[in-house]
Amino acid sequence: MGNLVNVAVDAMGGDNAPGEIIKGTVDALNDQENVRVHLTGKEDLIKAELSKYNYPSDRVTIVNADEVIGMDEPPVTAIRKKRDSSIVVALNLVKSGECDAFVSAGSTGAVLAGGQLLVGRIKGVERPPLAPLIPTAKGVSLLVDCGANVDARPSHLMQFAKMGSAYMKYAMGIDNPRVALLNIGVEEEKGNALVKETYPLLRSCSDINFTGSIEARDIPEGGADVIVCEAFAGNVALKMYEGVGKVLLAKMKEAMMANVRTKIGALLIKDSLKSTLKEFDASEYGGAPLLGLKGLVVKTHGSAKAKEVRNSIIQCITFKEQDVNGKIKQYLDLDSEVN
Amino acid sequence: MGNLVNVAVDAMGGDNAPGEIIKGTVDALNDQENVRVHLTGKEDLIKAELSKYNYPSDRVTIVNADEVIGMDEPPVTAIRKKRDSSIVVALNLVKSGECDAFVSAGSTGAVLAGGQLLVGRIKGVERPPLAPLIPTAKGVSLLVDCGANVDARPSHLMQFAKMGSAYMKYAMGIDNPRVALLNIGVEEEKGNALVKETYPLLRSCSDINFTGSIEARDIPEGGADVIVCEAFAGNVALKMYEGVGKVLLAKMKEAMMANVRTKIGALLIKDSLKSTLKEFDASEYGGAPLLGLKGLVVKTHGSAKAKEVRNSIIQCITFKEQDVNGKIKQYLDLDSEVN
Repeated sequence: MGNLVNVAVDAMGGDNAPGEIIKGTVDALNDQENVRVHLTGKEDLIKAELSKYNYPSDRVTIVNADEVIGMDEPPVTAIRKKRDSSIVVALNLVKSGECDAFVSAGSTGAVLAGGQLLVGRIKGVERPPLAPLIPTAKGVSLLVDCGANVDARPSHLMQFAKMGSAYMKYAMGIDNPRVALLNIGVEEEKGNALVKETYPLLRSCSDINFTGSIEARDIPEGGADVIVCEAFAGNVALKMYEGVGKVLLAKMKEAMMANVRTKIGALLIKDSLKSTLKEFDASEYGGAPLLGLKGLVVKTHGSAKAKEVRNSIIQCITFKEQDVNGKIKQYLDLDSEVN
Repeated sequence: MGNLVNVAVDAMGGDNAPGEIIKGTVDALNDQENVRVHLTGKEDLIKAELSKYNYPSDRVTIVNADEVIGMDEPPVTAIRKKRDSSIVVALNLVKSGECDAFVSAGSTGAVLAGGQLLVGRIKGVERPPLAPLIPTAKGVSLLVDCGANVDARPSHLMQFAKMGSAYMKYAMGIDNPRVALLNIGVEEEKGNALVKETYPLLRSCSDINFTGSIEARDIPEGGADVIVCEAFAGNVALKMYEGVGKVLLAKMKEAMMANVRTKIGALLIKDSLKSTLKEFDASEYGGAPLLGLKGLVVKTHGSAKAKEVRNSIIQCITFKEQDVNGKIKQYLDLDSEVN
């Protein structure tokens, strides 16, 4: 057994805290020998949940935090004022170096703001992007940025491309990841001012595998491994992806439950359908990493259940063991040598 | 029978021209007594297709056009140079007043550019948006703008809201349509610079039913009737909507065809599933109108089949009979009186 990876977990964040967060944590601990989890939040609640399970207690630390940041609080103010919140206490563990990574299902705004304010950016990173993995027909793609930086500049997008390449190559094991620029057509002259300025910058990067523009309709097919976009468009793409999936599946279910005949049909296809849909389950891959910080910060869905929490913790182990931050630095440095 | 509505149809545009275009035209003519269609394109090809069907030939005019604008030609140049193309000839029929509307499955860029250059904007309209109807769990919503005007300004978005309201109220019969601004969160302080400037403008419009921001994930649920957005984000939303649907349905089909057991199950649920999925079939509603021009220009998918072409022609009849352009003028004038 090598060195333990230390992961701080926000026990109080998200719709299903603390129950599902603790369950996911226990699952990760039982599955993986090389991780220690630091649970931040109300000690008595955490202890009560932990008492339901068998787990390696020598690899769990409870760090009491009496406050909770609500989903609707103004993020920066909340981070500054609620020093004893589960998010701030956890981020300070990463800042001090006691932890390598942080996982939270809490307020996205607070996690993003706190990550930047407390953990801090890697030197040279202009804007740390939020980069969720989305399942596709061919595997999984990274959508970078999906909400951290609205009104980004071309130089930011170039860094997103590099950080995303490093992440997909080293954290996800995809060789020579294909990088595409989200656009409204595939021709180079298409797009808004930002895209038109960014395109030649990406084309000039020798250290990434830039394949050109991609339209949103080709993302679910798996048209690229890293999709670079400004956060507003990325957020729209991500949420439309989630929204369409949800409605289509609900309608499908309705159709299968319509009458006795369809219910029998549903029983016959259930297993096959389940294994197909599993491929499209984002929680299989963990949460969205905020790239470019000195430590790893992972934001899971607010509605995350144990599986997503477990997989997010495992994601932190890979990130640390593969030294993805070291690779991100290399990608960014390489460019500063070239220019 | 009242006055005939005159619709110009591009017989040469799209992946399935002229076959599916002519078939859809014949279907519309046989269904509706109050429309005359002017088919533009190569006369011999059009005649050969028409000869396959029974239809009211007194309500069909063939207008020969020897050129075709390809999908990848630079739009403005193509419109200027190919004066004898099916698109230009048809648009000139609208310009001259001989036709009320134009339907094309051809190059989106050429249709948008040609609509503006040849048909022209209603006086006072700053930018004519492309506004597709997308099916939702509750009916159908209008996404405006989806590709006509990148880098739009807040005043453009305000006009989109008004034109979209007029369209949904009078062409689609939705009373007091709910207008929402596409955003990355629902709080007023969320969003990029454009959205932050547009929000108070929309709130101040007394003639529309502005309900605030909408996240892309709530669009498929039917969270608003008119979704106002800048064209880049709108195009991403639309294409992601189409892309996810396509991949999920393909995967679903794969799961149902996996083995004998699932194939029997599929047979049992087939009818129920079909009627559910029909609700999500955009071609039921026709194509995307380009709003704010002196005549109606409707862009169908490049892959449009007869049903979409038929429904697009019927859409033109409603547009004319409900005097949607008159209503658009009223909506826009009302505002100029207020200010």
